[in-house]
Amino acid sequence: MNIYQERTQNLRALMQEHKIDAFIILSADPHLSEYLPDYYKSRVFMSGFKGSVGTLVFTQKQAYLWADGRYWLQAEKELVGSGISLQKQDSKNTFLTWLKENFDKTQQIGVDFSVLSLELFKELKKFTTPIHKDLVGLFWKDRPKLPQAQIYEHEEKYCSHTRKEKLQLIREQMSKFKAQNHLISSLDDIAWITNLRGADVNFNPVFLSHLLILENEALLFVDKNKLSKELEKKLEHEGFLVKNYDTLMQELQKLQNTSLLVEPAKMTALLIQSLDQSVQIIEAINPSTHLKARKSSKEIAFIQEAMIEDGIALCKFFAWLEEAVAKNEKINELDIDEKITAFRALSPLYISNSFATIAAFNENAALPHYKASKEGFSWLEKDGLLLLDSGAQYKNGTTDITRVVPIGKINKEQIHDYTLVLKANIAMSKTIFPKDIAMPLLDSITRASLWEEQLDYIHGTGHGVGYFLNVHEGPQVLSYFAPVLEKTKAKEGMITSIEPGIYKAHKWGIRLENLVAHTQVENPKNKEFGEFLYFKILTLCPFEPDFIDFTLLDEKEKTWLNAYHKKVEEKLAPRLQDDKKALEWLKKRTAKI
Amino acid sequence: MNIYQERTQNLRALMQEHKIDAFIILSADPHLSEYLPDYYKSRVFMSGFKGSVGTLVFTQKQAYLWADGRYWLQAEKELVGSGISLQKQDSKNTFLTWLKENFDKTQQIGVDFSVLSLELFKELKKFTTPIHKDLVGLFWKDRPKLPQAQIYEHEEKYCSHTRKEKLQLIREQMSKFKAQNHLISSLDDIAWITNLRGADVNFNPVFLSHLLILENEALLFVDKNKLSKELEKKLEHEGFLVKNYDTLMQELQKLQNTSLLVEPAKMTALLIQSLDQSVQIIEAINPSTHLKARKSSKEIAFIQEAMIEDGIALCKFFAWLEEAVAKNEKINELDIDEKITAFRALSPLYISNSFATIAAFNENAALPHYKASKEGFSWLEKDGLLLLDSGAQYKNGTTDITRVVPIGKINKEQIHDYTLVLKANIAMSKTIFPKDIAMPLLDSITRASLWEEQLDYIHGTGHGVGYFLNVHEGPQVLSYFAPVLEKTKAKEGMITSIEPGIYKAHKWGIRLENLVAHTQVENPKNKEFGEFLYFKILTLCPFEPDFIDFTLLDEKEKTWLNAYHKKVEEKLAPRLQDDKKALEWLKKRTAKI
Repeated sequence: MNIYQERTQNLRALMQEHKIDAFIILSADPHLSEYLPDYYKSRVFMSGFKGSVGTLVFTQKQAYLWADGRYWLQAEKELVGSGISLQKQDSKNTFLTWLKENFDKTQQIGVDFSVLSLELFKELKKFTTPIHKDLVGLFWKDRPKLPQAQIYEHEEKYCSHTRKEKLQLIREQMSKFKAQNHLISSLDDIAWITNLRGADVNFNPVFLSHLLILENEALLFVDKNKLSKELEKKLEHEGFLVKNYDTLMQELQKLQNTSLLVEPAKMTALLIQSLDQSVQIIEAINPSTHLKARKSSKEIAFIQEAMIEDGIALCKFFAWLEEAVAKNEKINELDIDEKITAFRALSPLYISNSFATIAAFNENAALPHYKASKEGFSWLEKDGLLLLDSGAQYKNGTTDITRVVPIGKINKEQIHDYTLVLKANIAMSKTIFPKDIAMPLLDSITRASLWEEQLDYIHGTGHGVGYFLNVHEGPQVLSYFAPVLEKTKAKEGMITSIEPGIYKAHKWGIRLENLVAHTQVENPKNKEFGEFLYFKILTLCPFEPDFIDFTLLDEKEKTWLNAYHKKVEEKLAPRLQDDKKALEWLKKRTAKI
Repeated sequence: MNIYQERTQNLRALMQEHKIDAFIILSADPHLSEYLPDYYKSRVFMSGFKGSVGTLVFTQKQAYLWADGRYWLQAEKELVGSGISLQKQDSKNTFLTWLKENFDKTQQIGVDFSVLSLELFKELKKFTTPIHKDLVGLFWKDRPKLPQAQIYEHEEKYCSHTRKEKLQLIREQMSKFKAQNHLISSLDDIAWITNLRGADVNFNPVFLSHLLILENEALLFVDKNKLSKELEKKLEHEGFLVKNYDTLMQELQKLQNTSLLVEPAKMTALLIQSLDQSVQIIEAINPSTHLKARKSSKEIAFIQEAMIEDGIALCKFFAWLEEAVAKNEKINELDIDEKITAFRALSPLYISNSFATIAAFNENAALPHYKASKEGFSWLEKDGLLLLDSGAQYKNGTTDITRVVPIGKINKEQIHDYTLVLKANIAMSKTIFPKDIAMPLLDSITRASLWEEQLDYIHGTGHGVGYFLNVHEGPQVLSYFAPVLEKTKAKEGMITSIEPGIYKAHKWGIRLENLVAHTQVENPKNKEFGEFLYFKILTLCPFEPDFIDFTLLDEKEKTWLNAYHKKVEEKLAPRLQDDKKALEWLKKRTAKI
């Protein structure tokens, strides 16, 4: 019996003992974060499946993992011998639809409410009886410890507003909702409000915490060991009283006959259930989510500087790669990750990568979320395409860029596909659009040139990006797969990625990604039809002109490309004067076509 | 006191008598139709406002009309002296939002349930107490009679399915919903299922009726005077028992311990309230709505023939107009309507117009739904633009086309705007898109070239069109203003209009409209990314090459335009050999550019 079968057996015994008909294990933590501290990786512990998202459901007879299309191949491999079967998750088959079909209110469904969103709790309650149990915790002996990274200040010079001002902005929004108090568990919201950063999880510079904004003070719940006495005092002086992380429940129970604003998707059921019944719950998206999504002009200016740091690193990296390939050096995907990271780390403003680098060669890139690992990676030893999706956290901004470079000889179909993806990127990049349009409505403009050849890609075209914060940040989403919701509206100051792709199974994957800032059209040609926004391109890195079939580009596309390359050259060349190789690499690609 | 004030006084007295706090008067009939028989025009009777849609709400002190942007100017004129104030309706101000703010469940809101959809009834019931009263009927002395037009068969040769087959198709759908019975009040659904047509309202070839599909028979409720004994017998033989229109309630009350499928938006509250409590209501879009939206290849082939009839009439009309203008004949907008109608009526397959012709000169066309009337119309006696939006019902199809023609000299801005609208039309027309995409998601492709110059238009880009049936037909809708719903998905066989526009207040309006059929891409270049559809252009009428700024068109657009004009010429020229003037007009416009 393999280790996962044993664990399933343990769980089933406990389920029987606690009269639980089905037990759900989510990919979640008390902050409903994208990246989880190891302590919360109970889904990996129970199944061995290491993808970023997946949900387990166990009954006495069944054991299923729901994972989305990105992870089907990986999950099938990793589940071998576990006794757990993969359920191929899509809009019609999710663990929820399955539970709905198989369970009713007479049955008890166990789930750890400390990592269950209020939103999901309500959904479950519609058709069954959810019960709070952390059964896995009962037999997880060598469970990892919670992270202990130090908390530090985001330097004032990089912040457009002090934490005191931000608190004021939030309180203004709270009063609009007639909410006397506001509880926030989402880590990027808290980091943004407090102008603090941490390193408790990979890639997102956040720290485990909750923030309870009361009428006259704000209580920041963190492990006090993570910050200096000086910082604690400073925070207190600025309206934030630091409390120990594990005293939140206690403080929450003090609330009586008052109102509390929470975001149901970003708040756990456990915290809400712990509240006194006299507390009126007001549900809305955290005001900080809307506030932080709209970067100030000062922040945008900083990000433009961060993009220069990033662009320099990319030029140096790609120049190194070109030479290494020419010299037939033995390079694999892991080397690529290491090397691009090293070039970025040369910047004094570099903090960390902003997500796990995707360096994917040939057929590996056909899996949009492929990740090379020590157990499985490819060598760049044939002709083909290398897809590199990478980014970093700098003190003055967060980057996320994808480029595809030819290694050795490339064929016509590859050039054709690269050109189509570039056309898709340009199509969206040069779109001018009405302010406040829901962004899913724009996506078809990106895809039209792919659809023309009956091509498409199964991921969204773009996501919001934080300012020295999470690389995936809401509320906007640029994807025709996403529901058209109020929160997806395009606002000035948002930063969004544009990253169309073509993925040909067992052959290659091409994705081209820039970050853009939603910017007001300054001198509108017409003023009677409302305000319009355009995308100011932030990312500074050339495309590959030798890899473009220019007969497929129209004049406007060529003009866009020349203008972009001119800007890239102007911004990066002055900083590459001492690196002839990188400068040459850049100039060769940014020459006017 | 004007007549409307008197009527308001009558109504308020009755409201007091019946303890009604607010009374709603809808633009609706028992079939929730777009075009109402005069009998149901109580909103016009009470207010004098003649626009196509509007809602009145009366309290003892207030009297409001909610009308949308199309009708603000008209409503303000028509309401003068009525004591009724215009409420400018938009997404945030509707009669419902107003009622919600001002009423609660302790208050009684009167409304005629016989014209109130079940959907709206449920909405009202959420926050107030709706009461069924036709108060207006109590004092409307010379209320018009119900229409009496004869019912006739849609000739078998034009129908892909017999009514018996269609009944079978509906029953298959009913069993999917586990519905034993199905009640339909929407007139186009009934006309489609029964292969019958009528003329009870303007433009839509339908007849007042309800259809109750029971397990073993279908009861068609119509005024029996409207059909011959022969037809009645034939229908009975084919599974449709004809019952008198006013016996529906009686038959409905016979239903017991059974289930009934209805569409809440297309069914009145009165009918549903008359049902025995043992009847289980199953709510869904009428299956016939989905079935009739997808035209068969036989129907599409017929429509293509109808388009030739329409195209011939248009060529003759435009050739006449060109000559008349050259000769300085005195022509007004009403003449245009009369003349285009006369040319269409020459076709032996012509039945009627499919909607009220919009012939709008210069600034009149800046109002997208302007309608000339004897009380207000313009003469074509200056330079400018004539917008003509018109269509007809033929036995083999329904048409709807908009063209804009220059009268006299035109200026650069007009040419620029015409070219932009043409670009928008071409952009959508040549789009290939994934089958089943919700059509609101496609609209941005149409508008991108307008947005580029900060232009937009406040109406949708396209609506579904019936087959010798209603010119506005659901369920699809091509508009970024429309919600993204399951029913808006693009399916093969649908017919949709593409009609972008530019409207410059007090100057001109330009709209260019073709009908298109959603058609499967036959030899897809790629097969791994699902099935794709393209738009087969159905409408046959050239654009105005002398009115296009070709420097604004790219090669693909020019190719599209040449291919379209070539097809138009090929289809129409052979039928215009005996009309040299029209043939010349056509050839001049379809010459390769």
